[in-house]
Amino acid sequence: MTATLPEAVTTARDLVTPALRTAVDRLAPRMSRVAGYHLGWLDEHGRPTGAGGGKALRPALALLSAQAAGSTPQRGVPAAVAVELVHNFSLLHDDIMDGDRERRHRPTAWTVFGTSSAILAGDSLLTLAEEILLEEGSQGAYWAARCLSAATQRLIAGQTADLEFEDRVDVSLDECVTMASDKTAALLACSCSIGAMLVNAPPRLAAGLAGFGAHLGLAFQLVDDLLGIWGAPEVTGKPVLSDLRTRKKSLPVVAALAAGAPASARLRELLHRPEPLTEEDLHEAAVAVEGAGGRTWVEEESARQLAAAEECLHQIDMPDHVRQEFLHIARYVTSRDR
Amino acid sequence: MTATLPEAVTTARDLVTPALRTAVDRLAPRMSRVAGYHLGWLDEHGRPTGAGGGKALRPALALLSAQAAGSTPQRGVPAAVAVELVHNFSLLHDDIMDGDRERRHRPTAWTVFGTSSAILAGDSLLTLAEEILLEEGSQGAYWAARCLSAATQRLIAGQTADLEFEDRVDVSLDECVTMASDKTAALLACSCSIGAMLVNAPPRLAAGLAGFGAHLGLAFQLVDDLLGIWGAPEVTGKPVLSDLRTRKKSLPVVAALAAGAPASARLRELLHRPEPLTEEDLHEAAVAVEGAGGRTWVEEESARQLAAAEECLHQIDMPDHVRQEFLHIARYVTSRDR
Repeated sequence: MTATLPEAVTTARDLVTPALRTAVDRLAPRMSRVAGYHLGWLDEHGRPTGAGGGKALRPALALLSAQAAGSTPQRGVPAAVAVELVHNFSLLHDDIMDGDRERRHRPTAWTVFGTSSAILAGDSLLTLAEEILLEEGSQGAYWAARCLSAATQRLIAGQTADLEFEDRVDVSLDECVTMASDKTAALLACSCSIGAMLVNAPPRLAAGLAGFGAHLGLAFQLVDDLLGIWGAPEVTGKPVLSDLRTRKKSLPVVAALAAGAPASARLRELLHRPEPLTEEDLHEAAVAVEGAGGRTWVEEESARQLAAAEECLHQIDMPDHVRQEFLHIARYVTSRDR
Repeated sequence: MTATLPEAVTTARDLVTPALRTAVDRLAPRMSRVAGYHLGWLDEHGRPTGAGGGKALRPALALLSAQAAGSTPQRGVPAAVAVELVHNFSLLHDDIMDGDRERRHRPTAWTVFGTSSAILAGDSLLTLAEEILLEEGSQGAYWAARCLSAATQRLIAGQTADLEFEDRVDVSLDECVTMASDKTAALLACSCSIGAMLVNAPPRLAAGLAGFGAHLGLAFQLVDDLLGIWGAPEVTGKPVLSDLRTRKKSLPVVAALAAGAPASARLRELLHRPEPLTEEDLHEAAVAVEGAGGRTWVEEESARQLAAAEECLHQIDMPDHVRQEFLHIARYVTSRDR
């Protein structure tokens, strides 16, 4: 079965994209062009592509969080725009640092416009996110801006840790989970609560939604890391066994290395080989991750995190249709064929 | 005569540095180390250098602007910290883009810690600047944060234009002045008004101070561009005729090219030569800039901007000793031997 994109996500895209474009159009022309290319609505010559941009997962969560507080999705739009801007700031900069040449089946911005333009476009989106919230001028916008800057700081700390792990042989599972919490879960937790904050929801509601988002974010990253090894290339857009090729210290790999099983030692030996890994080595490494229990741990942990996320949701008082849409998104983003 | 560093600048450094260090210490350890190195108080191994960081020009202006509004300098500290963080965010990223390997007589952060760490350290300082202001929680802090993010957006637009100019042959003097207004003057205008905003000064006072800062910022950049060609290496820390070596489209060069004089044509021919310029070529180019009136225009324009800045100051009602300190800083930063 193929998971279908939740309606809340497509609705969010329709509602948020025009506001996002209006915001990006305010930037200096070159920044607006680089950002428009990165976001998918311009080609490399600045001509409209007719496409509407990314999946709008974070905007959808932000709009739902406004609705959870009894508001209309429309009132959550500035929050949705701001989280999407921060998310794309991080993608623009991460693609440079990771040397990634392709995203969403297109050449990454830095390969088209140069590193400097991609750095500056990221900087301008980060600044724009703050501007969009502060322009609202309400007490709720103030709390939303604080939530977003705290999440941004954790996102940066997570990316820093991720890069540090590349040079280390002794990454613990705890460190790896903390890294994923910072790099992925913090902005999802913010996305799930920022709309509520913007519309001045009681702190208890916003905190509950943030808890839901934090668990969801971890579950999301755990599944992402499973797909990084065992995902079908036609779904992930990446080669088979992708994260083993790059010897990434992803959660299944670190869990397997930490298990102390015979397969852990074999995996360590393979990953530390100086020469490039052959296809046979890669398959052996995948078998070793599985044999050391790395795959099972990640599958079980993602199920635990999803269950914890759902438990959070059920403890929050919100309109039932909003809860159902949150649940739908949670199950969609943690499914293997999202 | 050698211009002496105004007392307000050294006082600001003493008052702001501890708060700046406390702020930077909150970052993820690696970010705090990269930022501490860039700011001068750590060496490349993370050991204290005993040095106190940069000149604290922007913090000094921010503290004076709080005092102009009748407040103590202490109350302006968060504003001073925030502008200094944004200034250093931009230096960290600009050094990468410009490929500069040395700053303040030390290797730049990206050459020591790598490009990725320098990008992330810049990102974290930019985010920290917002956090520091928003944590104040007052209406004044809200206006200060808006002022700072607007200035940051202009700073990014200015750097974008500066990089674009490298690939263009037809930069007009107007475009070059706009670029300098964005890249340099916007953050100085913000520095001169953000302390007043933070302490809830009347908008008219803050606007007057911003006008002073905008003129001062342009005068500062004009003098900087003079020093980039005719500055003494022992003062600038750069080789003689530095900006001509890199064929930078600085204000004297663009003014000379735009003059339509016989020397303009000779300058254009020299700057467009495909091969590296010899020492003789460089001296000839400097003579051509002067012959086409580029040097005179910049000297006169910087004097006009300084006069306009002083005129702004005199139209603002503020304690006289504060006005005197503003004037002292203005004359210092626009002197040839600052």
